[in-house]
Amino acid sequence: MLFLARMDVTFPESMTDETKADFQVKEKEYSGNLQREGRMRDIWRVVGEYANYSVYDVADNDELHAILSGFPMYPYMDITVTPLAKHPNSIK
Amino acid sequence: MLFLARMDVTFPESMTDETKADFQVKEKEYSGNLQREGRMRDIWRVVGEYANYSVYDVADNDELHAILSGFPMYPYMDITVTPLAKHPNSIK
Amino acid sequence: MLFLARMDVTFPESMTDETKADFQVKEKEYSGNLQREGRMRDIWRVVGEYANYSVYDVADNDELHAILSGFPMYPYMDITVTPLAKHPNSIK
Amino acid sequence: MLFLARMDVTFPESMTDETKADFQVKEKEYSGNLQREGRMRDIWRVVGEYANYSVYDVADNDELHAILSGFPMYPYMDITVTPLAKHPNSIK
Amino acid sequence: MLFLARMDVTFPESMTDETKADFQVKEKEYSGNLQREGRMRDIWRVVGEYANYSVYDVADNDELHAILSGFPMYPYMDITVTPLAKHPNSIK
Amino acid sequence: MLFLARMDVTFPESMTDETKADFQVKEKEYSGNLQREGRMRDIWRVVGEYANYSVYDVADNDELHAILSGFPMYPYMDITVTPLAKHPNSIK
Amino acid sequence: MLFLARMDVTFPESMTDETKADFQVKEKEYSGNLQREGRMRDIWRVVGEYANYSVYDVADNDELHAILSGFPMYPYMDITVTPLAKHPNSIK
Amino acid sequence: MLFLARMDVTFPESMTDETKADFQVKEKEYSGNLQREGRMRDIWRVVGEYANYSVYDVADNDELHAILSGFPMYPYMDITVTPLAKHPNSIK
Amino acid sequence: MLFLARMDVTFPESMTDETKADFQVKEKEYSGNLQREGRMRDIWRVVGEYANYSVYDVADNDELHAILSGFPMYPYMDITVTPLAKHPNSIK
Amino acid sequence: MLFLARMDVTFPESMTDETKADFQVKEKEYSGNLQREGRMRDIWRVVGEYANYSVYDVADNDELHAILSGFPMYPYMDITVTPLAKHPNSIK
Repeated sequence: MLFLARMDVTFPESMTDETKADFQVKEKEYSGNLQREGRMRDIWRVVGEYANYSVYDVADNDELHAILSGFPMYPYMDITVTPLAKHPNSIK
Repeated sequence: MLFLARMDVTFPESMTDETKADFQVKEKEYSGNLQREGRMRDIWRVVGEYANYSVYDVADNDELHAILSGFPMYPYMDITVTPLAKHPNSIK
Repeated sequence: MLFLARMDVTFPESMTDETKADFQVKEKEYSGNLQREGRMRDIWRVVGEYANYSVYDVADNDELHAILSGFPMYPYMDITVTPLAKHPNSIK
Repeated sequence: MLFLARMDVTFPESMTDETKADFQVKEKEYSGNLQREGRMRDIWRVVGEYANYSVYDVADNDELHAILSGFPMYPYMDITVTPLAKHPNSIK
Repeated sequence: MLFLARMDVTFPESMTDETKADFQVKEKEYSGNLQREGRMRDIWRVVGEYANYSVYDVADNDELHAILSGFPMYPYMDITVTPLAKHPNSIK
Repeated sequence: MLFLARMDVTFPESMTDETKADFQVKEKEYSGNLQREGRMRDIWRVVGEYANYSVYDVADNDELHAILSGFPMYPYMDITVTPLAKHPNSIK
Repeated sequence: MLFLARMDVTFPESMTDETKADFQVKEKEYSGNLQREGRMRDIWRVVGEYANYSVYDVADNDELHAILSGFPMYPYMDITVTPLAKHPNSIK
Repeated sequence: MLFLARMDVTFPESMTDETKADFQVKEKEYSGNLQREGRMRDIWRVVGEYANYSVYDVADNDELHAILSGFPMYPYMDITVTPLAKHPNSIK
Repeated sequence: MLFLARMDVTFPESMTDETKADFQVKEKEYSGNLQREGRMRDIWRVVGEYANYSVYDVADNDELHAILSGFPMYPYMDITVTPLAKHPNSIK
Repeated sequence: MLFLARMDVTFPESMTDETKADFQVKEKEYSGNLQREGRMRDIWRVVGEYANYSVYDVADNDELHAILSGFPMYPYMDITVTPLAKHPNSIK
């Protein structure tokens, strides 16, 4: 079951570059694991913004919330979730 | 080069069910061709709405506009386009 | 798996009172069935608006879209869907 | 008499994790009591957001405001309230 | 128990002046009755708009919805309702 | 001449509870005086929000601005003002 | 006492050019009279839009509503009104 | 003096394809003349929308309004205008 | 050539009353000069808000930007500018 | 391939004038290089705002994101990007 998420990241003014870099390392590992498990199918950068669109394949809403709230940067993210259904014109 | 599009369809009140059905047949064929050519990579139904999110792989903006404005239902669509870049955390 | 939906109904100017009444009979039957099957857990009227909030218990997004797009008044509804997860403070 | 509330929580940057955890303990107890008293009928997590939808059964607006403003996290919440009436299609 | 409502009226293009005048007569009677019963405490015109703010004193949400949906012009109104509680600084 | 105002209060994170309590005492006195003078006709709490709707009876816009900008909490308020005219259906 | 109004005009599709021209003649006369009476102090076209900003000098809200609702094109106007007070930096 | 405009075109449902084609011919000629005169410096299609961004070089606001309101499709356009000043980082 | 501007002022929490008062003195002088030069034709307070509407008469966009960005409080202002053209119904 | 970007700059309250001036020097150099390379075709100041509209000519979305995220002030910018296609009425 697929969901599209848009995530916008806003770091507080007081966060040091070192902390930011540390978060980015953790995010890369967390996102990599989700992709290897097949639970994150795609992640793209929104051009010109500190934001992404990503696609999740999960069993239910609770699993999706666990994934999203588990992102290291979750406290600094504004996330909107769109539930997706099969489109009649999709050939997949 | 990838783009995410959201398309919302609104038919005029006067359109007959027959005309709508005819549009849907043409859309299916048009979308199918785009997918077989690899120019539309995904299309999903937004749950509860006469709308889709779809992902396009094109050479440039002119090709994308030609594809979008070529949809049989284009005059009845409200489309928003988001340019996508590679995300540093993508493993693809 | 639960979802909250808000549905706003707008009938076209040309629709007769008879047709509206007919739609309302069909809606009542459709909603009644969903409730008896346990797939619609609640439906409430938004005070002062031709709108409802309703709660669905479904297996996946495709089932939810089938339910929502099956409403007799679906072509006249503007629907927004919110996926719900278990809240840690719920005692249910 | 029922009301639907959506609550979005935003903690100030300076709040320590310890204080946050303390708030969460107090919220759990407060919400639990409201549910045991039958005044909060449901509470759900909005997927991907530090937010909930919750349903209240109260005698009047003053009781509802007392409940909402009594939440330990109230100063950090953005709340929108929707009054609900019985829906003609509800079988309850 | 008090509620504030804002009502915006939009008549369809096809409605004749005669029908509009007829609606206005019925509205005046309906509003007058609500005021004499003490259920509508105030009604004011929003300057420059075909809209009003009005204040209702009702026993519960169902009574309020019955009142609002009973307005002769209800099908042409866009209504937003705000539940009001006693303010600690009110001297009433 | 009547005006409806909605006031939303947002205190800065750094304000102490003591200062807030002090402001509330001053507000109560200020609001009480306006009501006793007949210049504030009503003040209600918006359920679930640190906000009020209030109704003013003043001679002109300058008097209204003087009243509003004189609130002790004015620097922390977001105020929207709606000019009200007599409604033809009002029986007052 | 001054008010700023913004008026946006939208004519229905069915209105003939002749009727539009007739409305414009009536508007010109109505606006001219208001200006000669000193009740409309300024009227400007918003560049690129069928809209104006205009400034009114009136005794009270009821007079302003009578003026605005008296415009020949009033049924086709969307009007927003902003009450103005004397600015401390104005040298007038 | 430069201005950026965004124009969104919406044709009424009743307009025939022939009339639309006729408008497009007239627009092409009108836009071409503006470009040849140096008053329209650029015009671009917004990808996926019946809309353009265009840049005007005019002597004053009245000239700009005359140009914009002179477009054959003006009655069907929704236009927003942004005044532009020289940017200190421009090397032109 | 006329422009309407709306300016909303928001001071940072840390600014002292002394600094604010100093800014207000400088603003008064700056605004006074613009009015004496005929470049600011009007300035009004928006009732209930730390905001103004003001009207500028300038030779071009660069002059307007220089005026607006020269306000002592400019770093704390949110400004929206509307270009104005002569209205056909103005008798000036 | 062209894109229009709007960039709004917001500096944190704590940033010193010296740091701001330093950023502006770096921006000027960065923007100048982009223009000399032909990758930024235009940059204009939005009148009355700390914002610009700028036009980019790039090979693909990844190049555009690299350019935008490389701006020295990027962490303080809010950027919206619009993909542009050739307009049929352009004579270029």
